[in-house]
Amino acid sequence: MSGQPGHTPIVVAEPRLMRDTILAACRAGRRIGFVPTMGALHAGHASLVEQAAAECDDVVVSIFVNPKQFGPREDLARYPRTLPADLALVGAKGATWVFVPEPSTAYPAGHATSVVVAAPAADFEGAIRPGHFAGVATVVCWLFNVVPADVAYFGAKDWQQTVVVRRMVADLAIPIAIEVCPTIREPDGLAMSSRNAYLSPEDRRRAVALHEGLTSAAERWQAGDAVAVVEKAIRAALRSRDIPVDYAQVVDTDTLLPPRPGAAAVALVAGRVGNTRLLDNIFLPPRP
Amino acid sequence: MSGQPGHTPIVVAEPRLMRDTILAACRAGRRIGFVPTMGALHAGHASLVEQAAAECDDVVVSIFVNPKQFGPREDLARYPRTLPADLALVGAKGATWVFVPEPSTAYPAGHATSVVVAAPAADFEGAIRPGHFAGVATVVCWLFNVVPADVAYFGAKDWQQTVVVRRMVADLAIPIAIEVCPTIREPDGLAMSSRNAYLSPEDRRRAVALHEGLTSAAERWQAGDAVAVVEKAIRAALRSRDIPVDYAQVVDTDTLLPPRPGAAAVALVAGRVGNTRLLDNIFLPPRP
Repeated sequence: MSGQPGHTPIVVAEPRLMRDTILAACRAGRRIGFVPTMGALHAGHASLVEQAAAECDDVVVSIFVNPKQFGPREDLARYPRTLPADLALVGAKGATWVFVPEPSTAYPAGHATSVVVAAPAADFEGAIRPGHFAGVATVVCWLFNVVPADVAYFGAKDWQQTVVVRRMVADLAIPIAIEVCPTIREPDGLAMSSRNAYLSPEDRRRAVALHEGLTSAAERWQAGDAVAVVEKAIRAALRSRDIPVDYAQVVDTDTLLPPRPGAAAVALVAGRVGNTRLLDNIFLPPRP
Repeated sequence: MSGQPGHTPIVVAEPRLMRDTILAACRAGRRIGFVPTMGALHAGHASLVEQAAAECDDVVVSIFVNPKQFGPREDLARYPRTLPADLALVGAKGATWVFVPEPSTAYPAGHATSVVVAAPAADFEGAIRPGHFAGVATVVCWLFNVVPADVAYFGAKDWQQTVVVRRMVADLAIPIAIEVCPTIREPDGLAMSSRNAYLSPEDRRRAVALHEGLTSAAERWQAGDAVAVVEKAIRAALRSRDIPVDYAQVVDTDTLLPPRPGAAAVALVAGRVGNTRLLDNIFLPPRP
């Protein structure tokens, strides 16, 4: 716990200064938590910072709208940018430092390196957004070198992202622990997301279908229904609100392959609510 | 300098133990040098270890015949393995530790991550050996996480490899310095290489053509000749000994693009001597 909730965090833009600052704190015996974000922070991010502050001596939050994880027809230009509010929020939750790199430091002239994760990144978001996870893995690898923290916190809402990051960390022996924290929801169950800001009032009401579908899927799962029936429950909920389904699938939590008998699983859903793609998922505990 | 040349180095196979050992030495204020190799060590490797021992307090040598940097029709199975002699050599040159990981630790079950360097890895060896540099970059990235040294030493003989590694280190902000050390040569000028062991006595005599071609190329360069003339001198030397040329090209030292006026360049050559591909290069200083 940084011990100063409500303070103004120290903003650092220069990667070398950021790294040296973290190393000095490490040498002083402090445990460092890291919350990588793209800004436009909401209660989901706030809970990650809180968790980090509860478990660590110092917390770094990075805010970087990473161009490489957006496709050419995606929402990079209109992605919400709310830096002053973001700084106030993470300060209130106990962040010590906020790292806000310039794109030119993350992607120096002549940049040519990508970190590519094959299997768990191939389907779902990876199939719909070609290059997205290479963009995520590359910038997260870079961030983990610039912010050599003890533990990094990710939200469970982007479940496939957490699988891809954990796979990369294991495969490259990156010396950081990955902690996945529960999805934070609006009162009606909609998962918090920076992209919820795009929804019209009418679409905002329809968007609850994702959580509704996942909730009934979890009931079907617990009742012992076949995987196809569980998945059908999700699709039915989206269809009832005229939301086109990108995917609605039950998979192994760690590999995103078909679920193994007797193991935990996760139901993944993505749908198009108006012009906005929304994702959500629900954990499915092991069943006999 | 480790201060104990001639001793037997400590052999470490377990990545976590290797990393903890290095970190403990770092905390004790020791400067760590790292020489990554595939074993089958020769005087070129020996000079890297000597250089590391001269500049650092402790030296780690890794010996790992990395399967991912060999193509399906390449020489992985017959690549020379000479571990006892390798250990004696690096001990004599002052290595403190030798890291000999099992392939299953470098590539754990489910491994799916590649580090891919585009531009400087695309041509030359990258064009002839698809996937080679992704294999190199991935294992070097892994090694740099397991062996968090201050500086890593690479031989200039594999010039494109040094460019790819430096590009990766810059792009991912990997916290290690890269030092490129001069090529060590046989008395007749042949660059030291583990693959020289494949050469028949007759091929061994012909192999000198690479260095002969590069030497006359450097003379032509210094005389102010056009790049095409400089490159032709290399091809002529290989042709005079019936060595098929894979490439013979003058390029910018850092980008491997066409040389810039007034800047240093490097002449790269690769040829097939019998069944063995040999590489070499020569530095071309800036000229008016």
